[in-house]
Amino acid sequence: MMLGPAIELGLPATVLATDPAESAAAVAGEVRIGRHDDEQAVRGLAEAVDAVTFDHEHVPAAILEALEAEGVAVRPGPAALVHAQDKLVMRERLSALGHPCPRWWRITSAEELVDALAQAGGRLVVKTPRGGYDGHGVRVISDPAEVADWAAEHDELLAEELVPFVRELSAQVARRPDGEAVAYPVVQSLQKDGVCYEVVAPAPGLDEAAQERIQSLALAIAEDLGVVGMLAVELFETADGTVSVNELAMRPHNTGHWSMDGAVTGQFEQHLRAVADLPLGATTPLAPVAVMVNLLGGEATDLVPGMRAALALEPALKVHLYGKGVRPGRKIGHVTLLGEDAEDLLARAHRAETLIIHGVKEQR
Amino acid sequence: MMLGPAIELGLPATVLATDPAESAAAVAGEVRIGRHDDEQAVRGLAEAVDAVTFDHEHVPAAILEALEAEGVAVRPGPAALVHAQDKLVMRERLSALGHPCPRWWRITSAEELVDALAQAGGRLVVKTPRGGYDGHGVRVISDPAEVADWAAEHDELLAEELVPFVRELSAQVARRPDGEAVAYPVVQSLQKDGVCYEVVAPAPGLDEAAQERIQSLALAIAEDLGVVGMLAVELFETADGTVSVNELAMRPHNTGHWSMDGAVTGQFEQHLRAVADLPLGATTPLAPVAVMVNLLGGEATDLVPGMRAALALEPALKVHLYGKGVRPGRKIGHVTLLGEDAEDLLARAHRAETLIIHGVKEQR
Repeated sequence: MMLGPAIELGLPATVLATDPAESAAAVAGEVRIGRHDDEQAVRGLAEAVDAVTFDHEHVPAAILEALEAEGVAVRPGPAALVHAQDKLVMRERLSALGHPCPRWWRITSAEELVDALAQAGGRLVVKTPRGGYDGHGVRVISDPAEVADWAAEHDELLAEELVPFVRELSAQVARRPDGEAVAYPVVQSLQKDGVCYEVVAPAPGLDEAAQERIQSLALAIAEDLGVVGMLAVELFETADGTVSVNELAMRPHNTGHWSMDGAVTGQFEQHLRAVADLPLGATTPLAPVAVMVNLLGGEATDLVPGMRAALALEPALKVHLYGKGVRPGRKIGHVTLLGEDAEDLLARAHRAETLIIHGVKEQR
Repeated sequence: MMLGPAIELGLPATVLATDPAESAAAVAGEVRIGRHDDEQAVRGLAEAVDAVTFDHEHVPAAILEALEAEGVAVRPGPAALVHAQDKLVMRERLSALGHPCPRWWRITSAEELVDALAQAGGRLVVKTPRGGYDGHGVRVISDPAEVADWAAEHDELLAEELVPFVRELSAQVARRPDGEAVAYPVVQSLQKDGVCYEVVAPAPGLDEAAQERIQSLALAIAEDLGVVGMLAVELFETADGTVSVNELAMRPHNTGHWSMDGAVTGQFEQHLRAVADLPLGATTPLAPVAVMVNLLGGEATDLVPGMRAALALEPALKVHLYGKGVRPGRKIGHVTLLGEDAEDLLARAHRAETLIIHGVKEQR
């Protein structure tokens, strides 16, 4: 999704992909084949470009630190990125900075986990510090035995209280190397089985003061951590309206896909502008409400008949397919609708989603 | 500009380009090298894809007719495309259909040209029927000697009266193979040295009835000629508000670039949807006014410093650079701004244009 904006801005993009069949590699004009954790492969990419950025967090910090020490423009830099790579580092840093977090514990022994469970009232969210995504690496436990396998594999685990949230919010901001930064409207996101499923922009019922307060929090985190590029701050909102940080992502994020069609500057263009050190773009929405619904793999393996039916029903529907093989529950695309009434838009977007992922035969 | 939407819709695109350095070839994931007038090259492309379309009109009809006869989906088909390839065929057909045209003459001899000049009051626009673009192949004459070179080279020329137009309009429509069609708002276009330079969408001062009348004309032409894909109908508007057809283009057209950022469905996505026989998208504008200004090559050879300055001044500016080498007067990109006041938007878009094409040093 970064390639279209790169073409339009005249910024030549080179993709490093493990396999030529990966969806980005299949459509990019310039592709290098190599692993993101192979120093020679990453170094070869860095030598071919003016700046290096990421669409995931899994490039080892040691590789990025070596490149940065040699003068390569790594954006975001490894000192920022580590807060999206390691949840313990993130919790420690955000807490030290005074940014709101759930209660959390660093777990290095069975005793610490027993203590934390007791302090948290018998239930905890336990996370592997690194490598988790989309619900992987996260378990809700009431007995240490439920993470015995992780305890054996990892020196440290992160434990967090279960936040009694009423909903999840997400705040996206972008920041340039010189500190210039912009904020998008704060959105409401709904997860399904640990995967982002539905986003409403802006978050319904969030008044202007709350919008600004949360945008300021995200901008402060971007500044404090020295982020360059897009930063997504995923948040829990509790019944009293307070928020606490759930996770950070330093790249265009699923909760910001609405902006591709719903804002003057989409998040992929914005990320490129930040990474290329170009002035940032307006984040103004193009309609009062945008809704985004993820397409998670269903019964249909050929998505075209369902897309045809959905587009026929909704001429203003924006369909984005990722060129990935369909597997149950896998993110294979998303749809966006702009309008005025979130409920109506959501109902229509979900109807389109159903048509596309289950195929038109399901609808007879 | 078709590649970004192709990526998002999940439609794999293959580009046939003469040279790997051509701008589309440089950014496309799949490229074949070959000439558009080499039957084997076009046939090779056709065998690799489900449908063939164009970003110019210069593929010989004989090649397309042969492919179509063999069952290849050529969209638009050669029977439609000839009206964008040959201006005499276009004039003859539109006149026969009763669509408004300037007075015109088929010129096959010096005597016919003398006669036509006399009938037209001493001045004529003479055009080579094929191969012209951006002012090439068009001359205003008052003496047959002024086209003596063309008369020697061409069996036939097209002569047209000089229409006393007050402005030029352009009407874009899209049509699917089954006849489903949609119309974009009619826009005002301004030429500079025969090249499209500035577009305002919708055309200022054109009331709803006139908008609908002109949209209906463009839809009728698309239907009559059997167009599939985008059709641009360039029009002269005279002081009494009547219009006549100037030229036709059967592809995304410069006068429709505003829709990439200014309409729910941009013209490149729309063209792909029509060509892939997907339901067409909403043409609804995203703002009351959109202005588009072309970037024609100026003094700056590196466009980035000027783009940086322009984006800093105008956070909502949409910049599109074509990855082409800069030559004086060559179309190298365009900029778009959305808003409410056409005059204000044009002034700001031209300021951005100046910064980008002449470089920031010019602005001190």
